Amino acid sequence: MTRAELIEQIRIKRSFLCVGLDTDLTKIPPHLLETEDPIFEFNKAIIDATKDYCVAYKPNVAFYECHGPKGWESLKKTLDYIPSTIFTIADAKRGDIGNTSRYYADTFFKYLDADSVTVAPYMGEDSVTPFHEYENKWVILLALTSNRGALDFQFLTDIHNEELYKKVLRKSQEWGSPENLMYVVGATRAEGIGEVRKIVPDHFFLVPGVGVQGGSLSDVANYGWNQDCGLLVNSSRGIIYASQKEDFAEKAAAAAQTLQLEMSNILDQKNF
Amino acid sequence: MTRAELIEQIRIKRSFLCVGLDTDLTKIPPHLLETEDPIFEFNKAIIDATKDYCVAYKPNVAFYECHGPKGWESLKKTLDYIPSTIFTIADAKRGDIGNTSRYYADTFFKYLDADSVTVAPYMGEDSVTPFHEYENKWVILLALTSNRGALDFQFLTDIHNEELYKKVLRKSQEWGSPENLMYVVGATRAEGIGEVRKIVPDHFFLVPGVGVQGGSLSDVANYGWNQDCGLLVNSSRGIIYASQKEDFAEKAAAAAQTLQLEMSNILDQKNF
Repeated sequence: MTRAELIEQIRIKRSFLCVGLDTDLTKIPPHLLETEDPIFEFNKAIIDATKDYCVAYKPNVAFYECHGPKGWESLKKTLDYIPSTIFTIADAKRGDIGNTSRYYADTFFKYLDADSVTVAPYMGEDSVTPFHEYENKWVILLALTSNRGALDFQFLTDIHNEELYKKVLRKSQEWGSPENLMYVVGATRAEGIGEVRKIVPDHFFLVPGVGVQGGSLSDVANYGWNQDCGLLVNSSRGIIYASQKEDFAEKAAAAAQTLQLEMSNILDQKNF
Repeated sequence: MTRAELIEQIRIKRSFLCVGLDTDLTKIPPHLLETEDPIFEFNKAIIDATKDYCVAYKPNVAFYECHGPKGWESLKKTLDYIPSTIFTIADAKRGDIGNTSRYYADTFFKYLDADSVTVAPYMGEDSVTPFHEYENKWVILLALTSNRGALDFQFLTDIHNEELYKKVLRKSQEWGSPENLMYVVGATRAEGIGEVRKIVPDHFFLVPGVGVQGGSLSDVANYGWNQDCGLLVNSSRGIIYASQKEDFAEKAAAAAQTLQLEMSNILDQKNF
């Protein structure tokens, strides 16, 4: 999917919501466990219920691969089921030397045909650029993450008083453009989002951490907004586990719609 | 596998060689492509031919997962086939927020039952420690990698004149011990290995980059040696693709034996 197509979907749907598919066999409604592929059945119902309220889905690859080959089948079926107007994010946090990252790119862009993959920056340029060899596919690079451990290294400050996450932002702009590169910027560090926006005015941000992790949607919009919206705000558990009973899809739809309505108000306020 | 068992194997086999199983359908001998599972057939022949000369195998997960569920089956069969006296490394470069790293740990330690997994440090403590919840399983944390992109961020120097890779070494010692934590230290930066050894005297290093990438075995031994050897030196392409014809296993054995003999000399010189 191109950047222009993504922006168009945000305008049409009045939403910049990404639904995280962290599908966990211990948390889905028990009646689904009797089906042949409970993970896919759950995702299918969640997608049917929420697809009008979101512009992106983000399956978290760890939750699938822990089931071995069967988990990869569920992941593939899920990505195939998502309507082509919706942006797909394989949340995989990959990254290795060049000849290896090329195989990871094959996995996510050829085998799974996702629109994007999350990538870790530690190994630098040649671990990231192989993903850019695919046209209309995106790298979403870790910059400032939402977890506690983000404090361990991402704020390391160099002699020019620049933090590691800012160096990642500056350096990586040499590797991709706003047309094929986004950044992970956690909602739990709202002021950090503002810092990031100063350095990368045009790129989209994937923002996890709203909801269960404690981030605020209005803070994210205040600090992260750009002229094209520039935000994909993710919610996983707050939507997909809104209920763990037979009404799970209905409750997921309601939770997604609540966020979509807040987002619609923000888009209106911004005259977008 | 415990640290003591690994050291014992190094003593017995007079080797600290790790064979990298970067198995690529475009590089394996064409006659294997007619078998039902060419990747596993290749690995099986390589393992049979080299198992007396090495103490570890390192399948590079990217080369398997690009084939989808079938690739994961080949990977599982490969790990199951490796003798239990040989240390296994799932080279996967994973790392995510705590609840997600826990699923990655399940994948590599429960489903695949590998002895260790490579982990990227960017997201900090809670992305690494879930892997330590498994007993006698190891994290191999990226510290100083062998690729060109290592220069982009790993040498970022803070106000105390300490590079990022050194901060990773210091901080991560709070999370694991020499009994369950190793570091990736690239052979292409031999003096860097010496710097790393000063900070972590007791930990094992997984050293890629000898051979095709240009690193020297004697430099690695000079700079990286500790009282328990403390080194696993990896060679992938130089061994497994020593020949791409029907004699591939025989040539792989010869290439592995050549390295093992060099290592045996080093172990003798060190009175180990």
